[in-house]
Amino acid sequence: MSLIEHLNWRYATKKMNGQKVPDEKVNQIIQAAHLAPTSSGLQPFKIIVITNQELKEKIAPIAFGQSQITDCSHLLVFAAWDNYTEENIRNVFRHLNAERGLPDTATADYENRLISMYTAKTPEENFHHAAKQAYIGFGVAIAEAAILHVDTTPMEGFDAAALDELLNLKEQHLRSTTLLPLGYRDETGDWLVNLKKVRTPLSDFVIEFK
Amino acid sequence: MSLIEHLNWRYATKKMNGQKVPDEKVNQIIQAAHLAPTSSGLQPFKIIVITNQELKEKIAPIAFGQSQITDCSHLLVFAAWDNYTEENIRNVFRHLNAERGLPDTATADYENRLISMYTAKTPEENFHHAAKQAYIGFGVAIAEAAILHVDTTPMEGFDAAALDELLNLKEQHLRSTTLLPLGYRDETGDWLVNLKKVRTPLSDFVIEFK
Repeated sequence: MSLIEHLNWRYATKKMNGQKVPDEKVNQIIQAAHLAPTSSGLQPFKIIVITNQELKEKIAPIAFGQSQITDCSHLLVFAAWDNYTEENIRNVFRHLNAERGLPDTATADYENRLISMYTAKTPEENFHHAAKQAYIGFGVAIAEAAILHVDTTPMEGFDAAALDELLNLKEQHLRSTTLLPLGYRDETGDWLVNLKKVRTPLSDFVIEFK
Repeated sequence: MSLIEHLNWRYATKKMNGQKVPDEKVNQIIQAAHLAPTSSGLQPFKIIVITNQELKEKIAPIAFGQSQITDCSHLLVFAAWDNYTEENIRNVFRHLNAERGLPDTATADYENRLISMYTAKTPEENFHHAAKQAYIGFGVAIAEAAILHVDTTPMEGFDAAALDELLNLKEQHLRSTTLLPLGYRDETGDWLVNLKKVRTPLSDFVIEFK
């Protein structure tokens, strides 16, 4: 078993057919992203799951009218922390130590190092770092969806500030980074479905030092 | 089949045992990253594969002495384009159209839009965007390694400028973003191997709009 055949099956679906993805599969896709690694295990992002059709219709113009926003089954929004703060870092380690049956002080030195490091940076730098962690989970979610034969359209083309406003993300100290509509390809209506999948030559992609 | 059990098996390996990962598995991990989606299909990153032990030893201090750098089988460096330029964007579409048997002009409008968009941004903004695409492939590579029961240590903790210098990446218009040592866990010497894997509660990770 390998991801290769599943990654070859998938493509950035341009037209979806409106069919619903079973909740069990959606949960597996979310859980895969939840299990993805992040820097120091901070998991500085959340996934917003939208099935409300009215809300999807409000999001469509924010995503430049891309039809997958309304024709998908579930719209996932990957939203990263807008900053690393002492509070959100400490919270992660309170939970970690409790789950491992360790005292609160078990990770004190490590927490303090992280807090000094992140609080010395600007919120913008920290947001971009957090967003990169969200992209790891985004990649893992796309791979899990492909295994489950659920189609996805990875999207960066949307007005993030407008979406943050619509979903009240600022109040939750989050900023949207990517969208991932989940659904099923419209085999007859999608211009991309039958075009050859192309990647840069593997020989250009890899540099070896033996 | 699902990634979940494989993601639960994996962890950020702290000590590797020096055993070699078969080339076939390394190639599958690289191919998975190569097949990962990127914005507009530009694939603005490369993977540098290092097995040369002398070179790994030079990298170790750049990665703050982390033992996996020298004890791993293959050290992967994910390096993103340092900028989007007219040249690197056009090259991608020359290859795409040739592979699809389409004329060079088939994607002219789309290329021009991308070129206007990216060349209006600073190289630093473009690098961060390219780096995010590398993180998608990074996540997919980690997932593929887990399926193949190859251990990995996702690493951001290294001096990127020093590594770029050592590997002459600047001349190739690349900047290192993450490291991924591949190898096998040292079951007896790794302090993390038996600690419970902890993630933030799933209920905190997901926000639903039904």
